[in-house]
Amino acid sequence: MVDGGRYRAKACEGDAVEISATIFLDGHDELRAFVRHRRAGERRWHTQPLERVDPALGVDRFAGSLEVDGAGRWQWQIEAFIDRFATWRGELERKLAAGETELAPELEEGAAILAGAREHARGADATLIAAATATLADGAREILERCRAALEPELAAAAARRSDGAPGERSALFELDVERRLAREGAWYELFPRSWGGFEGVRERLPRFAALGIDVLYFPPIHPIGETARKGRNDAPRAKPGDPGSPWAIGGPDGGHTAIHRDLGTTEDFDRLVAAAREHDIEIALDFAVQCSADHPWLTEHPEWFRRRPDGTLKYAENPPKRYRDIYNVDFECEEWRGLWRALREVVLHWVGHGVRVFRVDNPHTKPLAFWEWLIESVRAVDPGVVFLSEAFTREPMMMALAKAGFSQSYTYFTWKNTTWELREYMAHLADPALARYFRPNLFVNTPDILTEYLQRSGPAGFASRLVLAATLSPSYGVYSGFERYEATPREPGSEEYLDSEKYELKQRELDGPLLPLIARLNEIRRAHPALRRLDGLRFLATESDWLLGYARRSGDDVLLVVVTLDSRRPQEGVLVVPADLGLPASFAVTDLLGGERFDWQHGRNYVRLDPARTVAHVLSVVAA
Amino acid sequence: MVDGGRYRAKACEGDAVEISATIFLDGHDELRAFVRHRRAGERRWHTQPLERVDPALGVDRFAGSLEVDGAGRWQWQIEAFIDRFATWRGELERKLAAGETELAPELEEGAAILAGAREHARGADATLIAAATATLADGAREILERCRAALEPELAAAAARRSDGAPGERSALFELDVERRLAREGAWYELFPRSWGGFEGVRERLPRFAALGIDVLYFPPIHPIGETARKGRNDAPRAKPGDPGSPWAIGGPDGGHTAIHRDLGTTEDFDRLVAAAREHDIEIALDFAVQCSADHPWLTEHPEWFRRRPDGTLKYAENPPKRYRDIYNVDFECEEWRGLWRALREVVLHWVGHGVRVFRVDNPHTKPLAFWEWLIESVRAVDPGVVFLSEAFTREPMMMALAKAGFSQSYTYFTWKNTTWELREYMAHLADPALARYFRPNLFVNTPDILTEYLQRSGPAGFASRLVLAATLSPSYGVYSGFERYEATPREPGSEEYLDSEKYELKQRELDGPLLPLIARLNEIRRAHPALRRLDGLRFLATESDWLLGYARRSGDDVLLVVVTLDSRRPQEGVLVVPADLGLPASFAVTDLLGGERFDWQHGRNYVRLDPARTVAHVLSVVAA
Repeated sequence: MVDGGRYRAKACEGDAVEISATIFLDGHDELRAFVRHRRAGERRWHTQPLERVDPALGVDRFAGSLEVDGAGRWQWQIEAFIDRFATWRGELERKLAAGETELAPELEEGAAILAGAREHARGADATLIAAATATLADGAREILERCRAALEPELAAAAARRSDGAPGERSALFELDVERRLAREGAWYELFPRSWGGFEGVRERLPRFAALGIDVLYFPPIHPIGETARKGRNDAPRAKPGDPGSPWAIGGPDGGHTAIHRDLGTTEDFDRLVAAAREHDIEIALDFAVQCSADHPWLTEHPEWFRRRPDGTLKYAENPPKRYRDIYNVDFECEEWRGLWRALREVVLHWVGHGVRVFRVDNPHTKPLAFWEWLIESVRAVDPGVVFLSEAFTREPMMMALAKAGFSQSYTYFTWKNTTWELREYMAHLADPALARYFRPNLFVNTPDILTEYLQRSGPAGFASRLVLAATLSPSYGVYSGFERYEATPREPGSEEYLDSEKYELKQRELDGPLLPLIARLNEIRRAHPALRRLDGLRFLATESDWLLGYARRSGDDVLLVVVTLDSRRPQEGVLVVPADLGLPASFAVTDLLGGERFDWQHGRNYVRLDPARTVAHVLSVVAA
Repeated sequence: MVDGGRYRAKACEGDAVEISATIFLDGHDELRAFVRHRRAGERRWHTQPLERVDPALGVDRFAGSLEVDGAGRWQWQIEAFIDRFATWRGELERKLAAGETELAPELEEGAAILAGAREHARGADATLIAAATATLADGAREILERCRAALEPELAAAAARRSDGAPGERSALFELDVERRLAREGAWYELFPRSWGGFEGVRERLPRFAALGIDVLYFPPIHPIGETARKGRNDAPRAKPGDPGSPWAIGGPDGGHTAIHRDLGTTEDFDRLVAAAREHDIEIALDFAVQCSADHPWLTEHPEWFRRRPDGTLKYAENPPKRYRDIYNVDFECEEWRGLWRALREVVLHWVGHGVRVFRVDNPHTKPLAFWEWLIESVRAVDPGVVFLSEAFTREPMMMALAKAGFSQSYTYFTWKNTTWELREYMAHLADPALARYFRPNLFVNTPDILTEYLQRSGPAGFASRLVLAATLSPSYGVYSGFERYEATPREPGSEEYLDSEKYELKQRELDGPLLPLIARLNEIRRAHPALRRLDGLRFLATESDWLLGYARRSGDDVLLVVVTLDSRRPQEGVLVVPADLGLPASFAVTDLLGGERFDWQHGRNYVRLDPARTVAHVLSVVAA
């Protein structure tokens, strides 16, 4: 649960969600506990037993799991009850062990408890309990014979199935958001379809994206682009004739958020692309960016949704002293907010109707949390499989609040974490179970807005290193096109913007570049290894080097050892310290899934040398003891 | 708050309770926040501002405090609102700084915001805002003159007192149990009044207990003792003639829980004792033990409150194979539980009526939590100053649950923590703010049931060492009589029971013993130093010795440095490492409040040698820089 039940925790279809609780009572009676669960709306409850865990791991702690086999909202609660028969049985055992023999009153008590249990038992249990009760209560028999009958393990099991039928104590009811696996796991690739020959051009390349192991192709806005105050190349305040404008300045004479830019194709082309992608197990993700260009139909159809200044003019977006004269923000606080909210939901549902089930949401942190909570819940009422990625680069409390409001996953500050210390600290924070319960990272190595200083300076090995980190540190990661060919020229020194950014001009892109084989191989490894598709099995390992980042990824029996150099220029030496409690044998062989070499390793220190001219990382799989 | 608001946190009268919250919103508007608070039942809310804390200490974190000036239940919540004028003012400043001059529309916006603020302002604020609005809106004046008027700090302050009068966002409502200081701070002394000449004998010695600095005199049950199955000396199953029996076998022909044992005195004697104690600032604490002897009037008057076996006989208390044939537990699950609960509350209220405001509750963990929650709440409805000490030596979840149910304080496992490692680990756990918010320890050095192996072996220096630890590690601590004269003979080897325990026989006790001066001095130091009356300023310090336990106690400007040897036989050497961030000057002088020596100390390592033949501890006060 999250914040004591105020928010829903998250899981994915097919997960066995770990449930644990501290359960105790006054006195010494035996407890039994289970988790009751159902999908929201279902009438019947299902139950799963909870077992007492080793007290060294938690006093009075019980644990079990809850298998969630479908997307949607689930409800669960803990129920516990006193097992009166087991309590009585334990006391009888102790009295016998102490040599007591005057046990007739005890046996009568036991018979009375069993009579209660029998009323609630069925079939074979009922028969067994009835027979045992008769023996227990039979004053003509020897006390010890009657005790033996009472202590039969089968009887205890039958009675435990509901000791005396009395209702148990129940915890509050908690809810769980179960999503598709893609909400947690996926390899994303961002591209501007206008640079790839529109929807048809992308469709033609689907087999190659599939071969690369891409799960999601994410498109910046595909809608008509405003002409008024359109921006020119390199963010020039005025466009020159022929400049296509930024896709985020949404809306023009052809329509707004439900229209398609005429240069990309028709609605039919889009539908065809979505359908073809699905055949390749690829999903098309759209951008949900709420702002409007000056030419968006809503400005004239719904002037009541926009804020005006005292002189009656529309108030364009600004963050003083910056002014965004090409876009207007809707006013979530306007009097007609209900109509505005519904219209925005209609936009999302329009694209859901066209087969889009993944949305990257632009700047959600500048819109009300209540809106997102409502939007996501009401869209999921139509299709519980819709995935929302939050593009909130802001202060952590807001990023976390967006996750609590329902976003499936979020961009992160990974992009700017470059040193071993920064990466360890930040990723350990994200993998902390209290956080990971509701916040899922999507590690992008670059975006159209973020060409980091590290990439500008690192050369090709730095690109490879960041790619390995993203693909092996998080179940979801992403690449924006150009990365695979080491694009790294900033608009000006000190800027994180690309020179001649695709945001403001047309490009002719092709799917090539020297990093593609590494992307393909990493995605292949990710698909073969469940350890790379969960965040919770992340554990950092000592390397005795400031340049080498080492970590283990584990899920069940699947263990991978990863070591990545953050030095893109010089060879670095160090070790990977394999702790004994990682569950590996004292000595074992590993294979590098990237390079193919085989090493004999052991608990403790294992020598590592990474020369960025040859390879930036080992991704090691244990092959044999 | 505790468990997300499910339980009440605790405080004491006169505390400034720290309140902090993470508060943020979508977008960049300026926030103001405060805490609203009132005593439960009061109509009017009071407010206290919260200020943004250094972001390095918490992103979007606001903090303030809430002064609680009376015992009882308090309610509080956070309220935050957007300061529209401050937001606008900040934007105007940034635009001016960027050299913008076309600010007429901005000034009109500002005038509109101020008009809203003026509606909710009073007196001088209203006049100031009205004048500023006129200047701002005056199109005949220069833009810069109008801007200057807008930026006057007095105007910002007046408008901030409620920017635009719009209602703020409020958190959930939380509750706080505010108790008397004695709920947290006190020196306890436990005695059996029958060994001291009854109530009159205790009354005569009150001046001496007062001189010792004792705050609470705690008596085991003072009620008639059962004769049936009465226990003899050293817990013998049968009493011999003249054996007085255990005070915990409550009830006889003279009455039950509201009666007084005839050998101790009359009700009038008791009242006289309570009144006399009050004049010495001493409180009499009674034992609330729910069990009944076979001769308790309730067994005949209310047989429905007790459990019977199938053969109709009463079921005495047992924890198989142990049987407590001298006592019967009431059955909290009986059908007539409402009458039983009410009768138990009447017992407590009876003694409250006789001036008793402190109860030590025997074995609360074997009774339902719901009962305690109800009992404590309903007794505090009569007198919010009643203090309840939980004698629950059980698993931690239950101990914590009793504190959440309302107990003011609790016995702990301190008694069995003997090594530096154990003491550091356990006391750091208890001082953890998340726990200390609702669980308050009372460190007893011994009890009639607990003569630890450590005391049996340690000799006098061990007694002194345990006393210093208890008195300086926790705001509440206690001593059971006999400790001051090093009583240490167990009933048999391996037992923690005293030989010839006072529980089962009459003693003639006198207030003497070699440890009394140390008790008196420690209580004097505790009263002079607020740092010893709070748990939250506890910080362990390195000593470079397994035998020396070092810690700092701090409350505001009051800082004490304590070092105690746990070796009662041999001298031990080490250091006390004073960290630079403790707030002390780089070099300073300390005086040992126990021994009177003066030392020149500094940040870092300070040499310490403790010879148990001379002294077991330094309790150091900083005297000068």
